Amino acid sequence: MGLRTGQQYVEGIRHRQHASIYVMGKRVTDVTTNLFLKPSVLAFKATFDAAFEEDTRDLARVYSPIVGEEVNRFNSLHTSPQDLVAKVKLLRKLSHKTGTCFQRCVGWDALNTLYIVTRRMADKGKKIYYDNFIKYVADVQKKDLALAGAMTDVKGVRTLRPSEQPNPDAYVRVVEERDDGIIVRGAKANITGIAVVDEVVVMPTRAMSENDAAYAISFAIPLDSPGVKIVVGRQLNDARRLEGGEVDGLPYMFNHEGLLILDDVFVPWERVFLYKEWKEAGVLVEIFSSYHRQGYAGCKSGLGDVIIGATHNLAKQIGVVDKSHVQEKLTEMVFLNETMYSAGLAASWEGRKLVDGPGGFWVNPMYANVTKHLVTRFPYEIAKLSHDIAGGLLGTAPSEFDLKNPEIKALIEKYLQGVPEFTAETRLRMIRLLENTSLSVAYLVESVHGAGSPQAQRISMQRLYDVDAAEKIAKFLAGMGNRPVDFRVEPHKKSEAEKT
Amino acid sequence: MGLRTGQQYVEGIRHRQHASIYVMGKRVTDVTTNLFLKPSVLAFKATFDAAFEEDTRDLARVYSPIVGEEVNRFNSLHTSPQDLVAKVKLLRKLSHKTGTCFQRCVGWDALNTLYIVTRRMADKGKKIYYDNFIKYVADVQKKDLALAGAMTDVKGVRTLRPSEQPNPDAYVRVVEERDDGIIVRGAKANITGIAVVDEVVVMPTRAMSENDAAYAISFAIPLDSPGVKIVVGRQLNDARRLEGGEVDGLPYMFNHEGLLILDDVFVPWERVFLYKEWKEAGVLVEIFSSYHRQGYAGCKSGLGDVIIGATHNLAKQIGVVDKSHVQEKLTEMVFLNETMYSAGLAASWEGRKLVDGPGGFWVNPMYANVTKHLVTRFPYEIAKLSHDIAGGLLGTAPSEFDLKNPEIKALIEKYLQGVPEFTAETRLRMIRLLENTSLSVAYLVESVHGAGSPQAQRISMQRLYDVDAAEKIAKFLAGMGNRPVDFRVEPHKKSEAEKT
Amino acid sequence: MGLRTGQQYVEGIRHRQHASIYVMGKRVTDVTTNLFLKPSVLAFKATFDAAFEEDTRDLARVYSPIVGEEVNRFNSLHTSPQDLVAKVKLLRKLSHKTGTCFQRCVGWDALNTLYIVTRRMADKGKKIYYDNFIKYVADVQKKDLALAGAMTDVKGVRTLRPSEQPNPDAYVRVVEERDDGIIVRGAKANITGIAVVDEVVVMPTRAMSENDAAYAISFAIPLDSPGVKIVVGRQLNDARRLEGGEVDGLPYMFNHEGLLILDDVFVPWERVFLYKEWKEAGVLVEIFSSYHRQGYAGCKSGLGDVIIGATHNLAKQIGVVDKSHVQEKLTEMVFLNETMYSAGLAASWEGRKLVDGPGGFWVNPMYANVTKHLVTRFPYEIAKLSHDIAGGLLGTAPSEFDLKNPEIKALIEKYLQGVPEFTAETRLRMIRLLENTSLSVAYLVESVHGAGSPQAQRISMQRLYDVDAAEKIAKFLAGMGNRPVDFRVEPHKKSEAEKT
Amino acid sequence: MGLRTGQQYVEGIRHRQHASIYVMGKRVTDVTTNLFLKPSVLAFKATFDAAFEEDTRDLARVYSPIVGEEVNRFNSLHTSPQDLVAKVKLLRKLSHKTGTCFQRCVGWDALNTLYIVTRRMADKGKKIYYDNFIKYVADVQKKDLALAGAMTDVKGVRTLRPSEQPNPDAYVRVVEERDDGIIVRGAKANITGIAVVDEVVVMPTRAMSENDAAYAISFAIPLDSPGVKIVVGRQLNDARRLEGGEVDGLPYMFNHEGLLILDDVFVPWERVFLYKEWKEAGVLVEIFSSYHRQGYAGCKSGLGDVIIGATHNLAKQIGVVDKSHVQEKLTEMVFLNETMYSAGLAASWEGRKLVDGPGGFWVNPMYANVTKHLVTRFPYEIAKLSHDIAGGLLGTAPSEFDLKNPEIKALIEKYLQGVPEFTAETRLRMIRLLENTSLSVAYLVESVHGAGSPQAQRISMQRLYDVDAAEKIAKFLAGMGNRPVDFRVEPHKKSEAEKT
Repeated sequence: MGLRTGQQYVEGIRHRQHASIYVMGKRVTDVTTNLFLKPSVLAFKATFDAAFEEDTRDLARVYSPIVGEEVNRFNSLHTSPQDLVAKVKLLRKLSHKTGTCFQRCVGWDALNTLYIVTRRMADKGKKIYYDNFIKYVADVQKKDLALAGAMTDVKGVRTLRPSEQPNPDAYVRVVEERDDGIIVRGAKANITGIAVVDEVVVMPTRAMSENDAAYAISFAIPLDSPGVKIVVGRQLNDARRLEGGEVDGLPYMFNHEGLLILDDVFVPWERVFLYKEWKEAGVLVEIFSSYHRQGYAGCKSGLGDVIIGATHNLAKQIGVVDKSHVQEKLTEMVFLNETMYSAGLAASWEGRKLVDGPGGFWVNPMYANVTKHLVTRFPYEIAKLSHDIAGGLLGTAPSEFDLKNPEIKALIEKYLQGVPEFTAETRLRMIRLLENTSLSVAYLVESVHGAGSPQAQRISMQRLYDVDAAEKIAKFLAGMGNRPVDFRVEPHKKSEAEKT
Repeated sequence: MGLRTGQQYVEGIRHRQHASIYVMGKRVTDVTTNLFLKPSVLAFKATFDAAFEEDTRDLARVYSPIVGEEVNRFNSLHTSPQDLVAKVKLLRKLSHKTGTCFQRCVGWDALNTLYIVTRRMADKGKKIYYDNFIKYVADVQKKDLALAGAMTDVKGVRTLRPSEQPNPDAYVRVVEERDDGIIVRGAKANITGIAVVDEVVVMPTRAMSENDAAYAISFAIPLDSPGVKIVVGRQLNDARRLEGGEVDGLPYMFNHEGLLILDDVFVPWERVFLYKEWKEAGVLVEIFSSYHRQGYAGCKSGLGDVIIGATHNLAKQIGVVDKSHVQEKLTEMVFLNETMYSAGLAASWEGRKLVDGPGGFWVNPMYANVTKHLVTRFPYEIAKLSHDIAGGLLGTAPSEFDLKNPEIKALIEKYLQGVPEFTAETRLRMIRLLENTSLSVAYLVESVHGAGSPQAQRISMQRLYDVDAAEKIAKFLAGMGNRPVDFRVEPHKKSEAEKT
Repeated sequence: MGLRTGQQYVEGIRHRQHASIYVMGKRVTDVTTNLFLKPSVLAFKATFDAAFEEDTRDLARVYSPIVGEEVNRFNSLHTSPQDLVAKVKLLRKLSHKTGTCFQRCVGWDALNTLYIVTRRMADKGKKIYYDNFIKYVADVQKKDLALAGAMTDVKGVRTLRPSEQPNPDAYVRVVEERDDGIIVRGAKANITGIAVVDEVVVMPTRAMSENDAAYAISFAIPLDSPGVKIVVGRQLNDARRLEGGEVDGLPYMFNHEGLLILDDVFVPWERVFLYKEWKEAGVLVEIFSSYHRQGYAGCKSGLGDVIIGATHNLAKQIGVVDKSHVQEKLTEMVFLNETMYSAGLAASWEGRKLVDGPGGFWVNPMYANVTKHLVTRFPYEIAKLSHDIAGGLLGTAPSEFDLKNPEIKALIEKYLQGVPEFTAETRLRMIRLLENTSLSVAYLVESVHGAGSPQAQRISMQRLYDVDAAEKIAKFLAGMGNRPVDFRVEPHKKSEAEKT
Repeated sequence: MGLRTGQQYVEGIRHRQHASIYVMGKRVTDVTTNLFLKPSVLAFKATFDAAFEEDTRDLARVYSPIVGEEVNRFNSLHTSPQDLVAKVKLLRKLSHKTGTCFQRCVGWDALNTLYIVTRRMADKGKKIYYDNFIKYVADVQKKDLALAGAMTDVKGVRTLRPSEQPNPDAYVRVVEERDDGIIVRGAKANITGIAVVDEVVVMPTRAMSENDAAYAISFAIPLDSPGVKIVVGRQLNDARRLEGGEVDGLPYMFNHEGLLILDDVFVPWERVFLYKEWKEAGVLVEIFSSYHRQGYAGCKSGLGDVIIGATHNLAKQIGVVDKSHVQEKLTEMVFLNETMYSAGLAASWEGRKLVDGPGGFWVNPMYANVTKHLVTRFPYEIAKLSHDIAGGLLGTAPSEFDLKNPEIKALIEKYLQGVPEFTAETRLRMIRLLENTSLSVAYLVESVHGAGSPQAQRISMQRLYDVDAAEKIAKFLAGMGNRPVDFRVEPHKKSEAEKT
């Protein structure tokens, strides 16, 4: 097989009954019908359907040498710049189809990261992790599983290392070693899509010292493993999904993130990909975060397209689309959006192969960080511009239920209509779309914090830029050096991942 | 009397039974207990209580020569720069008490605007409007009424004048003239606080030509006048108020805006303040919008304080408050916040008296426009910085209901705690406060559009700046003129309101 | 007397022959004819003429109770908010007349600072400094002297205190104490206007510890005191002044800053205003820097007017002034310019009297810091916008000497002309004005660093904002406190200067 | 041959005696020794030397199928994305070697543009232009000529078409047609490097209508053709080059732009590449401007490296390099710099082949426009940050001549030194480098206007973005369409150049 349809994914998830999933304090028995989670299921579903729909089929499928057949790209390993470019293009396209975060990237990036990390270990002589991992990937690809990736620990006191925390479980750790596997404990926060996946791949969240060895572990588990508990997080405007309407809350168009609690969960050895390898944790994080930061170019520019389109439509509805200041603002939105995307393309094209074998093509870390750092800023600008054009009704529009109440329906239709070819309903629908995208966690908060908060990118960019080389250039030009400086065109240093 | 307590206001509103108010498609019978509207009532209530609470009493009361006693400042007429300064200071303070827009400014600014406009008419020989208005103000002050102001029409096609619209009711107009009064029809959009006031003061929304005369009207009506229908607008995150919790939706801390429909409403002549005076409409709008733009310095910087405080607290809870980049970002938030406030103080201190009598002190229109224009930009910056510091949990935190579920309560308490002196609950509470302020209509969309969208301020600033004078200076300095240029220190032109 | 004309000032400076002034490695004998310094003399001269010219006379004169007559405002002490407002208005106006920094503010701010500091000492029982100072001010006012103020030391290693420096003279200090006075040594950097003043007032540049006592000194000396050496600094584009033309270098329109070297200079006791009073140094710096930061609202917005005017004229010359994007950019320039000015007005109006007597009215330090911090950013924005509109010729225009060469004169006239009512010469003149203002040290570098670099304002704003108070507000609103918080309307803390 | 050394270029230019070149009103006889122009010669020279220096040799040479040997890349035609990537990498590297604009890109971009345009004509059946052009390119490549490109006309009244101008020569046009060639008249403004090249390639500057046919011409001429007159433009700080020093004016490190006057110049037919082909003018401009906008990624990020390096060194010299706010600002500079570069890489990698044959690989026009638009903004930000860190001395430092005057030399050495391992001279040298790069025409004004002013890129981006497609996406997501939208991943439209 290797390629499931969206419906097959939904059926698979529906029957995964043992996972302990909580939404707003209540245990959920079927995520595919739960009003809070169903939109997430639909977004995930779109990543499967993409492999069959005409306009995405080519982007969404790729041949895997590991299983010898085509697989869904979301479970593939990158072997070329073209693969990385296809990633951001696919993500942009899927944003158009879902209008939200489709939640399948973290697992994907986790696979690509673990390929490199386990292969590095194998190249150094420790082959067991790589063997485990390749078997796991083959299984994932063949079954076309939906994966989450879990990296961010709850962290307790941010300024302390894992082993120094007052709460020893503030980072996920191994608490018992058995013949057949290990027992892990702790919690991972902000886990995208966690309640609607088949499995989750767990990774350490930071560089570690020797004292932190018990925290330097990576593994994969099915979501319904005993001891797994998931508390789904709330999002801006989420309660509207539960109202039973179809416009105000756009109940088909959301993602979720959640708290993954590992309450003494058993992991068999063959699913362990890193065990107390504290020296590898830092590199793993660098590899993963660069992969994940590159991806933002696609999904967030895709959401930007949605917002630009909605704004343009609203400007038409009230008859101002041709005003020069409206056109200027729309152009600014386009410019900001394409800037983010450009950087992601550069991060893809300028990537390099870090290790041998059927994977291991990594992004350019400098441009990946640039991409994500742009994403921490520009969506707020784009949102503001969209609000400016859309008009104040964005914050004051009536409910869809008002439009259904015969006492006031006619009045609302009369007074909410802008130019005659549109109706009050089209205006309301478009306002709700803009509200629920431009003022969503997916577009704002998540753009700031996903794949590491702004400061994380700044630290990376600072490390990757070779300021000493730049200084030598300056000295030469200032007449303080004897001859032109000979070094890389871009004064970039090698990343840690590239050094070894 | 002249000064009601908050509780007296609530009692008064509770018994105003005839208004036709709709929330999410349902008729509301008691706004003071309706979960959607109660927060608005509480915010309004705070403006009354301010006259009795120790820390605001002096700011919130002022002597009115019209009724010869102290009145609530929200119903007062300005006679000095100190009055205008007291306005922005009071607003900043009230934001601290309410955490939202307290909705009483539009009515206040309407009173001050109509004072100037009717007095101008009186000075030109048409005294009836002024007489009507002074009687009305005296009544409002004595009864300490809660007023809304209604300016923004629904506008239909934005590029057409009122009399050119396909829908002749796209702007509020008089449809019948009777011996005892007039019949008005139309709708006003985005009316702040409209469902919880005693009365509403209606004004035209733009400059008019002679053909638009029927639209150039101003008047006041009680909210329960026959034919008045109110459709309360939805806001980001509003559905949470209805959940019955106390944390996730902060159900005590919101405002509302709504659509005010005048479905052939009768207005007696003594409550008409402008009637087909189409030449006055433009000046009225300029006066009102400048008053209202100045006010934003107070309320939005007050909300900024709330956001800075919440962010600082969250930084403490996770132990990063002393990190240099966190301190830098907090300082940036302070800087942006105080910039908005400074401009509002300048608009107040540099105001001038436009007409004689117990009112008529106007803001400086240039600095009022600068103030509001800053407000269309900086809150988005402040919000972004607060999200940056607060961490990703802002978009993924569990519900208060999770914290009450015994199955997972202990786990959440364990994993959501940051530094030991705080708890999971304190973290959740502060996250919800930050979410519901920094991502609210009151702080974002309303900052863009309230008192006119950004382009309106740009047009005003362009008109008020004397670019010809600046060009003369440049010519002199470039050796293209003979002598220094003699004109105002600031190259500002007189506003329309100041010309006559 | 008390009021000198500009010409009287020039005559006075011309005969001050003993000062050792160096420009580009050469000793200058007459600053009033030196091509490098003459523009500075002309700018200074304008501050004297302002007291006689019709359009500035009222602003530029003020009654001094100390000498019982009108004095030039640049030597006056502030006693009211109106005085502070007059300061920023006068500065804006003088920028229009000079097109550059007129260099007389630092001395003025030094006088006002020393009034407060010496009066504070007197109030604590040490009256000698105050007596010395009042005598000095009376002399300055009566003779209408041109003063420089010198604060910034050369500082050596920035992270070390004065007493810890490898070079003990990295900060100005007393090296010998005599019966009749003291001997001082060291150097002050970046001293505005230093080569063309009568006297200079010297102040410490930072808070001091007891070990630094020898550095905690303030005094005034005539510029031609033995041992004084001045090295005039270079500025962007300065060499053009020496070409003998009148257009390319605008040789009438510059300021200068220089290095003031005190090579064992004698200061008589009656001119010492602070002596080893290390505890006062920090407060002195706070008072001075707030005064000086407020002033930037005036002079930089005045330069902004020049740049807006020049840009508007160039847009006319090439026929694009009515294009919507040009109008938008001009409006943006106005907005940025008026924002800076607004903040300075707020800093003035919201000032307070710190000490008794004929002086001591201080600015509001929060808004003064906001003002200057805006000035560290907005001029670069305004410059960029002006370059955008002006067109590429700004960086490629021919010389005035080309326009005088008969071989090519006609061709340049033909090809540089834009719309017919202008000429190649008018275009060249305006381009040069824009180049020499928008790309000047006075508008860019000095806007960043004058009165303290950006970080200095950030530290001040951070100190002045009461973040604990803001946090209490947030706690109350988050349901973590019991009652509304009672504190100042603005959550500002007292400055050090206000505490004592 | 095909590859000249820098020295060979200099010798060639030295003997080109007939060109009429004016600098500051004087005729120049030898540009290689003229103090104003020599820096331009040195910068150009570096582009030749690059083909021989070890660290650039590979980037700077490329095999040309046209002449069957390696040529200097600056005269090559692009056939792959790798060629375009090599272009931006080479430019970044050359900025490090020259510290300025090296002026050889416009000619290069002109060649690549004319290849596409003449080939398009050939493909449509008109082969003469292509034949002329290929012969010309072969000659240029074999002789390794230094080319300028001339596009921007003087334009007269900007809002009028060429044929509507009051001055018929406001755009370059053919005034006479002869058997052996044509006579052209007019002037081109802002021509980079014009005084120090061998030849200049002239192109039309805008889309044309049929009435403008006489203006729709392209051709190449040697610089010393009769009737050619060049008036070299002035630049910020230029007069310092003439002082005879080596530090203050960095007299080895500048470029120039000039006015190229064609005073009835004869062009033989074989050097005419487009003749009255008014329909092609618009596409030609689009192709050229996209090529040229892409290039800015390289040269301006290279200058950014110089500025970052100089700033870092100055921070060291005063001992503040480790301060957190300094590090933050340096990181911000890196981020902005790499963002511009990323976009240029994307524009290169995402290019496509427009026409067949040994050339014709074009950039992606959307990302090329994004690149240049970033360049119109970020250098001003980077400059401001560098000034912030460098300190106020940037605008007030003494002259190198002061440092040579024995009367004050020792004092300056004493007081200008920061941390002990540096000297006053190193500080001065680095300050001058920063001044002359961060405040140069090449980094500021030229970044705004080169390759078209900001509005030109905005119009391009607006055209290239398919806002209707984005709107369809929005409609689908808002429930206003029936099915997912099927179109390109990026909602981009085809450029005009790609359509045919």
